[in-house]
Amino acid sequence: MSIVKKINHIAIAAKSLEPVREMLSSVFGLESDATHKVGDQKLIADMFRLGDTTIEWMEPTDETSPIAKFLEKRGEGIHHICLEVEDLNDALERCRQNGIRLIDEEPRLGAEGDKIAFLHPKSTHGVLIELLEEK
Amino acid sequence: MSIVKKINHIAIAAKSLEPVREMLSSVFGLESDATHKVGDQKLIADMFRLGDTTIEWMEPTDETSPIAKFLEKRGEGIHHICLEVEDLNDALERCRQNGIRLIDEEPRLGAEGDKIAFLHPKSTHGVLIELLEEK
Repeated sequence: MSIVKKINHIAIAAKSLEPVREMLSSVFGLESDATHKVGDQKLIADMFRLGDTTIEWMEPTDETSPIAKFLEKRGEGIHHICLEVEDLNDALERCRQNGIRLIDEEPRLGAEGDKIAFLHPKSTHGVLIELLEEK
Repeated sequence: MSIVKKINHIAIAAKSLEPVREMLSSVFGLESDATHKVGDQKLIADMFRLGDTTIEWMEPTDETSPIAKFLEKRGEGIHHICLEVEDLNDALERCRQNGIRLIDEEPRLGAEGDKIAFLHPKSTHGVLIELLEEK
């Protein structure tokens, strides 16, 4: 039985949010539903809700941000997908049992107070996956 | 007003689907809902439905497949996102008016008979975007 409830969000990295906002507004009529500041990751993110998932478009606020490093290495583009699970501890245990390398060995608190953990893309076929358990 | 109904799917490229299926099944309890063969793109894709969207994990069936070329250049990982719109012709017209470069100037038929068109990632901040109008 699936332990994944849905795709919570898709995160995309950009150098600057302003031209992204302009494009999404003028081409698609999309306006951001919220803007979050994630202090420990040194980024701001615009949230665009689409059906039961969200596009989170991120801009680094500092050159030491992991997003700044991603942009340097890969350029602008899709950064990760976030799968929402019922029980994050159980999901991480299943990862360990199946040899999935964890970036976060234990759940930590995300920007909005949800429990989150990242899996290493080397063991998930090149996809950076965030797991999230809603608070 | 938004012309995007939802994220129709997220497409991911892999060298081989077999280990991906094993990972998704053992770690997440996810089984594919369907497997599609896309002849003109020389790929097969497993569909994993999650809420109102779908993960489409693709494997090239031939070295001339665009997916084989993507894998060579970028390695395994997220390939594109597909936004579902009410009216694809109208969406393409809005793209043109806003200087978005189109890969497909006119709608073409996707594997399941929907009308689709791809936008060029150079004008969408590094994200390959497929637009889809359901048949």
